[in-house]
Amino acid sequence: MLTFYFSKGSSALAAHILLIETGTAFTATEISIPNGDHRNTAFLRRNPKGRIPVLDTPDGLLTENPAILEYIAATHPEAGLLPKGPYPQARARALCAYLCATAHVAFAHLHRGARWASKEASLDDMRARVPDNLADCAAHLETDLPFSPWALGAAPTFCDPYLFQFTRWLEGAGVNITTYPKLAEHRAAMRARAAVQQAMKLHDLR
Amino acid sequence: MLTFYFSKGSSALAAHILLIETGTAFTATEISIPNGDHRNTAFLRRNPKGRIPVLDTPDGLLTENPAILEYIAATHPEAGLLPKGPYPQARARALCAYLCATAHVAFAHLHRGARWASKEASLDDMRARVPDNLADCAAHLETDLPFSPWALGAAPTFCDPYLFQFTRWLEGAGVNITTYPKLAEHRAAMRARAAVQQAMKLHDLR
Repeated sequence: MLTFYFSKGSSALAAHILLIETGTAFTATEISIPNGDHRNTAFLRRNPKGRIPVLDTPDGLLTENPAILEYIAATHPEAGLLPKGPYPQARARALCAYLCATAHVAFAHLHRGARWASKEASLDDMRARVPDNLADCAAHLETDLPFSPWALGAAPTFCDPYLFQFTRWLEGAGVNITTYPKLAEHRAAMRARAAVQQAMKLHDLR
Repeated sequence: MLTFYFSKGSSALAAHILLIETGTAFTATEISIPNGDHRNTAFLRRNPKGRIPVLDTPDGLLTENPAILEYIAATHPEAGLLPKGPYPQARARALCAYLCATAHVAFAHLHRGARWASKEASLDDMRARVPDNLADCAAHLETDLPFSPWALGAAPTFCDPYLFQFTRWLEGAGVNITTYPKLAEHRAAMRARAAVQQAMKLHDLR
C-alpha cells in the first residue's frame, strides 16, 4: 500500500489525479502547507526537504513531481500512460523538467519569492513579473507540444495531469488561458475526466 | 550521429561528460551564451527556448538536462549507467529534478536574476541569498544521498555528472565544498575520470 502526502490546492494535485486515474491502491494524508504542517518535526524527519508531494512506497520515500508521476505510470503499465521507447520517454521527461524547473519556478515567484530574496520591494518586483513569465511558458507549450488532444499526442501520458496543473498556475497568476486555444482544450478535456473531478473535490477545488 | 549544442562552462558540461563516458558518437557545436549565440535567429528557430544544452537525435531535438542525461544512459545500456527497476530509476529522476528545479534555480539567481525581477536592487537582494541557498542544497544532498562513492551508491549512474556540475555551482557561488566531505569526495572521484578531464578541457575548465 502506498501513502500519498499532499496539501490541498498544491502541485500535489497532478500526482493525486494520476493515482486515481491508474486505480492505484493508496491512502492520502493531508499535510496542510497553509497550516504549516510541512514544517512539523515529524514530517521533516521523514522528508527533510519539507516539500509536497511525497509518495511513500514499499521501497522507500519518493519526492519530486516528475519522479513520482513517472513512477506511478511505470508501476501501472496496464494504464498505458508511459510512452514507449527512449525518445518518446525522453520527450515526456523534458516536458516534466520544463514544467518543474521553468514553469513551476516562474509561478513560485508569486507566493514563494522569499526563497530567493529578502526585501519586500524585491518580492513585489518578482510578483509583477509572474504573469508575463507564465504567459511566455504558455506560448512556448502552445507551439511546442503536439496536442492531439493530449500533451504528447493521441495517447494520454503521465504528463497530462502535470500540464493540467500548469493551467492552474496560469489561472493563479491571472493569465487568460483562452489566448492559448490548445492549452484551453487540454484543460477542458482533463476537467471532463472522472479522476480529475474526484481529485479536485479532494483538494476543495472547482 | 548525434549533434550536441553546448556553451563552454555551462550546465551542458554534465551531458558532455556523459556523451564521452558512454562512447557516444556525436559532434559538438558551440553556442556561446557569453557571445549571445543562443539568441541567434537560426538557433532559436530550431530551439525556441534558447537554452543550452540541446541534443539533436535521429528522432528529433531534445532539451532539458534530466531528459538528455537519461536518454544518453538509456540508449547506451552497455555503459550500465541507468539504474534497474522503477524505484531506483525514480530515485535517480528525483535527484535530477531536485538539481534542475531547486539547485540550478538557486544558482541561477546569481547571474540570471533578470528572469524573475527587473530592478537592480532586487537582483542584488537575490545575489546575496545565493550562497546560503546553495549551502542548504549541499547540506541536503550530503545527508540524503548514499554516496558510496557515487551519487546513488556503489554503481555510477547518469546522475553523477549532474551532481558534479552541482559542485561547480557551489564553487561559482563561493560555497566551501570542504564543509561537505561526501560531496567533496564525489567531486574528487569525478575529476579523476578521463571523460571528465576531457569534457572540462573542451569547456576551457581546469
